[in-house]
Amino acid sequence: MKHLLIAAHGSRREASNEELKQLGIKVSAMLGVANNQVDVAFLEFAAPSIENALLGLFNNHATEVLVLPYFLSAGNHVVRDIPEELDKVLAQWPDKKITLLPHIGALDSMVGAIAGAFEVAP
Amino acid sequence: MKHLLIAAHGSRREASNEELKQLGIKVSAMLGVANNQVDVAFLEFAAPSIENALLGLFNNHATEVLVLPYFLSAGNHVVRDIPEELDKVLAQWPDKKITLLPHIGALDSMVGAIAGAFEVAP
Repeated sequence: MKHLLIAAHGSRREASNEELKQLGIKVSAMLGVANNQVDVAFLEFAAPSIENALLGLFNNHATEVLVLPYFLSAGNHVVRDIPEELDKVLAQWPDKKITLLPHIGALDSMVGAIAGAFEVAP
Repeated sequence: MKHLLIAAHGSRREASNEELKQLGIKVSAMLGVANNQVDVAFLEFAAPSIENALLGLFNNHATEVLVLPYFLSAGNHVVRDIPEELDKVLAQWPDKKITLLPHIGALDSMVGAIAGAFEVAP
């Protein structure tokens, strides 16, 4: 069973982190999968860290995790920091599979999201 | 004619700012409108600023601009900084209309974008 891990920056504002956890729940509902198949983790300021979230999944017998960087542009967090977290986990679990997806800002669906916001505006 | 202004953070990495300008072009293509009906402006590190982009539009006889904060969460940039830019422009152009849209992270379509990334992953 594939798991999805939404890898976000994390904020000092707890409401912002909570908003992301709710987003994870909405995604699992849209996918029609169990809540625990979609997780959210943070690079900074909030728990769980990306490393700990992945270790938790693998300790619970997950075999494959897709990691989606929830970032709009490919800065250092996307290019360097998230891959480093993944490497640390794979060093402990060399037989598990982690697939790093493109950051969300690179998805074609972002074009549609923006266009839609314009079209439905009053 | 309504204009759309995508209000992004801006980056020290020029490639990242360029990526956003390309995104604006893709959005105008999807909407089927002229390139110059969709603009991108930046809070920091890149030009044009949000204020200057709006002044430019109004000087060119635009009457109404929808501003879409291209941010994933409602931090200070969304809550305070972008509204301040808008207020500065409206002080000069009180008869023009600026509509501040919700930040992109708040759109329902983000749930679909994430779910889609999971579903199409190999």
